[in-house]
Amino acid sequence: MRHDPNATRSGETELGFDPATQDDARLAFIGRIRTPWSRGNCPKNVSRARESGQGAWIDLHEGYAPGLQGLAIGQGLMLIYWMFDARRDLITQSPRHIDGARGTFALRSPNRPNPLALSAVTITGIDPATGRIDIDAIDCFDGTPLVDMKPWLPTIDMPAGESGSP
Amino acid sequence: MRHDPNATRSGETELGFDPATQDDARLAFIGRIRTPWSRGNCPKNVSRARESGQGAWIDLHEGYAPGLQGLAIGQGLMLIYWMFDARRDLITQSPRHIDGARGTFALRSPNRPNPLALSAVTITGIDPATGRIDIDAIDCFDGTPLVDMKPWLPTIDMPAGESGSP
Repeated sequence: MRHDPNATRSGETELGFDPATQDDARLAFIGRIRTPWSRGNCPKNVSRARESGQGAWIDLHEGYAPGLQGLAIGQGLMLIYWMFDARRDLITQSPRHIDGARGTFALRSPNRPNPLALSAVTITGIDPATGRIDIDAIDCFDGTPLVDMKPWLPTIDMPAGESGSP
Repeated sequence: MRHDPNATRSGETELGFDPATQDDARLAFIGRIRTPWSRGNCPKNVSRARESGQGAWIDLHEGYAPGLQGLAIGQGLMLIYWMFDARRDLITQSPRHIDGARGTFALRSPNRPNPLALSAVTITGIDPATGRIDIDAIDCFDGTPLVDMKPWLPTIDMPAGESGSP
């Protein structure tokens, strides 16, 4: 019996290969996300993180600060970040909050072939001199690598016909 | 005078290094996006692609089809795909439709340190047996590599307080 925290649960399916060993493209981390969260106290998603009232910020790596030109406080931003300790070889999963198994692409789980996470946040501060951006909230561990950020645009980031109302 | 299509325009800034040579993390392409578009006829963004009335589909690579379990026709999906011929070393840019230069992170340009594109689409068909998903529209060249897909969720994919109204 396995007691590994990464052990496969009932109903879960492994790919049979590890996407982490593939080399189709390479990423350059552009900065780190600084949050109050570590294992044990991390909110499950960005809306829970918002409810906590705790902000967060991004420290860009050297050279990237000029990329902030034109962003403004109050603007929405799509962040793409790297869930570095995720499992990449699970193609169906049984999260505790769901009955039965579901495909990885039908879940927002960090465990996926390419462990990229996505959250829409709001800019609360910018310092182009140091490459720091403050944001309203995010749901990842302190130090999580940032891969990309883009201005949030309803025409691109909402499916046709969606109003966002529940 | 340079006539290279990749030539740097007035107001544009280069990083001074090429993020493509870094190796902070590696991606496994999970499939290909099949579209009617190639250089010369490709819509500028996903809303223009929708207006064209032309659908598109995804062919998943071998092994990934079980990841579709639980997705349904009509559902919104966030696609993350790889803009393989983008420039990765531009940190400010002067797109033709904007006056002056703007930071790369304030633009949706495919040219960015990690050329990941993001679009919210709607599922119009699923074939779990072959790993094919049909979608309403997308704005990338035929054959573009797919990196990830996730169910679209307003609580994660819209900034707090956004209604999506213009």
